[in-house]
Amino acid sequence: MAQDLHAEAAVAAEHFGDRLAAAVERKRSQLVVGLDPRPELLPVELRGDAHLGREQAAEACARFCRGLVDAVAPYVVAVKPQLAFFEALGADGLRAFEDVCAYARAADLLVLADGKRGDVGSTARAYASAYLERAQDRPPLADALTVNPYLGHDAIEPFLAACRRGGGGIFCVLKTSNSGGSAIQDLALSDGRPLWHEVARLVREWAEELVGERGLASVGAVVGATHPRAVGEARRLLPQSILLLPGVGAQGATPADVARAFASGPASALVTVSRSIIYAFKADGAEWRSAAGAEAARLRRDVWAVAGW
Amino acid sequence: MAQDLHAEAAVAAEHFGDRLAAAVERKRSQLVVGLDPRPELLPVELRGDAHLGREQAAEACARFCRGLVDAVAPYVVAVKPQLAFFEALGADGLRAFEDVCAYARAADLLVLADGKRGDVGSTARAYASAYLERAQDRPPLADALTVNPYLGHDAIEPFLAACRRGGGGIFCVLKTSNSGGSAIQDLALSDGRPLWHEVARLVREWAEELVGERGLASVGAVVGATHPRAVGEARRLLPQSILLLPGVGAQGATPADVARAFASGPASALVTVSRSIIYAFKADGAEWRSAAGAEAARLRRDVWAVAGW
Repeated sequence: MAQDLHAEAAVAAEHFGDRLAAAVERKRSQLVVGLDPRPELLPVELRGDAHLGREQAAEACARFCRGLVDAVAPYVVAVKPQLAFFEALGADGLRAFEDVCAYARAADLLVLADGKRGDVGSTARAYASAYLERAQDRPPLADALTVNPYLGHDAIEPFLAACRRGGGGIFCVLKTSNSGGSAIQDLALSDGRPLWHEVARLVREWAEELVGERGLASVGAVVGATHPRAVGEARRLLPQSILLLPGVGAQGATPADVARAFASGPASALVTVSRSIIYAFKADGAEWRSAAGAEAARLRRDVWAVAGW
Repeated sequence: MAQDLHAEAAVAAEHFGDRLAAAVERKRSQLVVGLDPRPELLPVELRGDAHLGREQAAEACARFCRGLVDAVAPYVVAVKPQLAFFEALGADGLRAFEDVCAYARAADLLVLADGKRGDVGSTARAYASAYLERAQDRPPLADALTVNPYLGHDAIEPFLAACRRGGGGIFCVLKTSNSGGSAIQDLALSDGRPLWHEVARLVREWAEELVGERGLASVGAVVGATHPRAVGEARRLLPQSILLLPGVGAQGATPADVARAFASGPASALVTVSRSIIYAFKADGAEWRSAAGAEAARLRRDVWAVAGW
């Protein structure tokens, strides 16, 4: 019994960066598929013709995501379910989120919950507990969570504590893929640097105590692939952080735009793609799972090639 | 039938600032109670002696919050359920959240969902839909939602659109009550202003097109009562925004610290208090509902007095 508990704790506590590095090498993939299920966009075989109630819509979204997991599992290291799309279906949606997270983990994929959470002390602890911590009756929902830096260090510390204890990770929003983000993130500080460089400095501080055996920290950052120059700067400012790069595909960036992100090792960056994989069937008319699998296979190859490892 | 639909649309679309102003005048209260249910802190009659499973814990939290609504309804204009504490109980927690929101609205209280959400375009639309928009089968979950500005204008625009259409409101995080927030929010910009002043300038822009008949905008801001000087500055920078002021009570601020916030009218600021009301029974040993009601009555009186209307 004592031995079992010990073994369990050891598994739970394995470092996020180390787990990711192992998965990237095993799969030869740095691709993450974003799960953004929207009932009105689901294949007709899942949504039917009639308007769905919430419970039915949530179940249809869960089936869609499970089908996507099956289709892309050979080609991706992780899924990134976007909490907003599940929350839009209320408690039924959250049930679907839990179901999809468990299904992805059973398929040996890492789960990066995309919630961009951030709040003061005890509230941040509740968020960390919700997504990164083991409860008595179940493993953590996710392996990592995206977080927002605007509330400062003491709003991030509870997530760091959860990572230390449970082997989870966080990705701090740094420089986002949308055009409007620059109104805040690019503001010039009194020393001339843009705001996001100072956020990067803080992320580096937070990351320093959470570097794993493979040299990667459990504290990463989100940088839009739509800003290729910022990707290179982020790599320089955060040599040990995993960069999570959205913006390839529907938002217009290409794998070549993010090549520099991989300078710190094959697992030092992840390209996350949502719409152009999960709704690939809308463009080419193929069966939805086949279309997603084919697009994931293609992107995995392209990203691996530009990463150059 | 057409008339019923029209009446319903008119109700749904009534402006958040106007609805709040009417409620403040009717109740002579600018107090909001924060609902932060933590299973381990519940009264023993609700949590029992044994460890609760998630479903039981969520039901106990819902009963706690419903009891609090009954106890404080005469003294407060709104409740502010903190999503993190419900999310920590997963889908069962979200079910409790939905239950508590409906219960509070039935008790004629406004509901300010505290989620500090923020994400790019289509994702922000999903958050707006989750919390501020009417679905076919139910009214909006909340009257207003707290949001995070770090992702810029196009991440806020979907919330503004929802406010325009449905009569909801948002409170943008500006200067938070925690000490660590200053590491970001107080950063000096190249023109010498602190970052949060520039965020205030953006909030003012967003608010301008959403001012109601009473002169208050549907776009407010969160400012920590723990920074009395910042409260006065925020009032000056945002003359038409409702300021949501946490930090009174357990975090150390007093009603006197926020007096200046009310300069734009009796409903131009809301003092939100969580722990010192909802867990008042722990300090004085009284029955939990009575203790919460008594503390809410006292704070309502104190706040009304300093507001000076």
